[in-house]
Amino acid sequence: MDDRIHEHAEVLVDWSARVDEGDDVVVSVGEDAHELAVAVAELLGERGANPVTLYGSDEVSRAYLHGHEGDFDDDPAHELALYEHADVALFLRGGRNTTATADVPSETRQTYNTAREGVREARMDTDWVSTLHPTRSGAQQAGMAYEEYQDFVYDAVLRDWQALADEQAKLKDLLDEGSEVRIVKEETDLTVSIEDRVAVNSAASVDYDSHNLPSGEVFTAPHATEGEVFFDVPMTINDRRVRNVHLTFEDGEVVDWSAEQGEKSIRETLETDEGARRLGELGIGMNRGIDRVTDNILFDEKMGGTVHLALGRAYESNYPPGHESEAVESAVHVDLITDMQEEGSRLEVDGEVVQRDGIFRWEDGFEG
Amino acid sequence: MDDRIHEHAEVLVDWSARVDEGDDVVVSVGEDAHELAVAVAELLGERGANPVTLYGSDEVSRAYLHGHEGDFDDDPAHELALYEHADVALFLRGGRNTTATADVPSETRQTYNTAREGVREARMDTDWVSTLHPTRSGAQQAGMAYEEYQDFVYDAVLRDWQALADEQAKLKDLLDEGSEVRIVKEETDLTVSIEDRVAVNSAASVDYDSHNLPSGEVFTAPHATEGEVFFDVPMTINDRRVRNVHLTFEDGEVVDWSAEQGEKSIRETLETDEGARRLGELGIGMNRGIDRVTDNILFDEKMGGTVHLALGRAYESNYPPGHESEAVESAVHVDLITDMQEEGSRLEVDGEVVQRDGIFRWEDGFEG
Repeated sequence: MDDRIHEHAEVLVDWSARVDEGDDVVVSVGEDAHELAVAVAELLGERGANPVTLYGSDEVSRAYLHGHEGDFDDDPAHELALYEHADVALFLRGGRNTTATADVPSETRQTYNTAREGVREARMDTDWVSTLHPTRSGAQQAGMAYEEYQDFVYDAVLRDWQALADEQAKLKDLLDEGSEVRIVKEETDLTVSIEDRVAVNSAASVDYDSHNLPSGEVFTAPHATEGEVFFDVPMTINDRRVRNVHLTFEDGEVVDWSAEQGEKSIRETLETDEGARRLGELGIGMNRGIDRVTDNILFDEKMGGTVHLALGRAYESNYPPGHESEAVESAVHVDLITDMQEEGSRLEVDGEVVQRDGIFRWEDGFEG
Repeated sequence: MDDRIHEHAEVLVDWSARVDEGDDVVVSVGEDAHELAVAVAELLGERGANPVTLYGSDEVSRAYLHGHEGDFDDDPAHELALYEHADVALFLRGGRNTTATADVPSETRQTYNTAREGVREARMDTDWVSTLHPTRSGAQQAGMAYEEYQDFVYDAVLRDWQALADEQAKLKDLLDEGSEVRIVKEETDLTVSIEDRVAVNSAASVDYDSHNLPSGEVFTAPHATEGEVFFDVPMTINDRRVRNVHLTFEDGEVVDWSAEQGEKSIRETLETDEGARRLGELGIGMNRGIDRVTDNILFDEKMGGTVHLALGRAYESNYPPGHESEAVESAVHVDLITDMQEEGSRLEVDGEVVQRDGIFRWEDGFEG
């Protein structure tokens, strides 16, 4: 077995999920994530934890949803009890076909998810972490050779996470103390208020309130957004390719927009509800192990030198205690990414340049 | 997908497990049983049941047991709760290597199983059924080509189970009314009492108190065994090949024995405890879909025209209510099989010939 699989398991179990002796752990294994599951199981044995292993197969889910007619039972007792009694849940993603559920009507999926709201909450109440084993279908989605994709994934996952958490803490402090962020680049001059918001240091560990491995970003909930912004990183939204989106904001709301490709997806998103025309997130990518776009939001939005803004729902963790109800509400949370590494790009906090041309002021090569 | 996989799923879900709308079902999927899992999931959807899908991987189990040191926690709460809240549990066996856990010390396995006695009991309290998806490793164990093995498994599984249950009911009635069974063939003349015992019609359905698919046997708990018996069907016991075993009984106990191959396994078995020298089961195979020995007890002991006797533990279901405590107790239950299809073989109940040369008296070709 590739040594990096064992290292991945160690980061997941020890850094991300902080598994302790006696922990009751649920491990969900994607169709092609077997090798990571084996490495994780061995480590859970070493740590004295108790795993129950689920088969997280998209093809099995699709078959069930296709076979089912009518309403779904609310929160099946056995599934609910499993998560209610679990301390940790690890999701090892990695299937054989990233579009395996493409022919399941989204209505069916929604009905199914709505019926299982209690199961979802019980799952979210565990120390859960989602990660990804590099599979051939993942490589195909990224447009890479398999070995190339393995290198890409492990570069992103096998970081010195403590060092990155410490670096991200610097940016979190700046955002927590600051009241305004300005983003300037080609066709972009956007100002958002971050007053009375709490930045999250997303360092791929439950101890940092961060549940994805890899992670590597600092994010907050912007408001009073003014100006225009250009998203030059292509992505897929609602199964459609989206490129070169422009948004113009007034008083926190989108008042004008355009897209070179994928107009329909942007229009659908903006028309979802009122919250979908506001920003729910400003995220600043800080994972330097991710050096290119692979059309997988789990990686793309963490790329060092990029900034992402999400239309729609905000995270409650960005609001001070007691103010969670102020969070933007929406049925959607759609991330759009802009590359800050081109010449002339800058990120300012209260008028002070924090990043120029994608380089933070504490990094080598920063030109103040 | 091979139509037979869908048919297998139907037999399992409808005939064997009797899944109803609203049932909470646990489905455990072997490493290579994916296709059967997909067919079962679709059907569970159609029936309106709620599946939780487990990954039943021997390699994952091995890794966990290898990693673990010291005592295991008793009955992990999440695993216990999962089964305590489940109505049905389906085990879809079929891995990639039938010897995947060969290097796990049996002591470790025992300690692990002992710590999970409560989980096991909760699992046995569901309407559970164990079946087998034909895999390449299964074909290899059986010494067959893959396609040949698929034909073999589906011949055994895709029976007219109602018709077989009705036929088996005839034999059950004979045994329930009778008081003595005599088995006569080459080097064999054995008499057992079946007085005060209840025969089980094992028809591969929870409604018949039968939890394996395929099944196809009628079994009871013999006592007061006298005489000698020759087991000419080769098998594997404790990882060793065993051939041509002779046992001599007096007053219900083995008093003499020999084996042409695998002496050590037979000696270990007989020396386990007192119960291991007595018979816990007399089983009469009635599945005519199984036409050859494949060194898999799940199939071999059900073969029409064979009889098996088990050294050790008896099943409580063979005792009348209130008499379960009379069942033979032992740490082992080792089945040995003899082929009754050779000329001169006969099975008698109270002196009446019920089967001659492997043919039951209600079958064509029976010579009274």
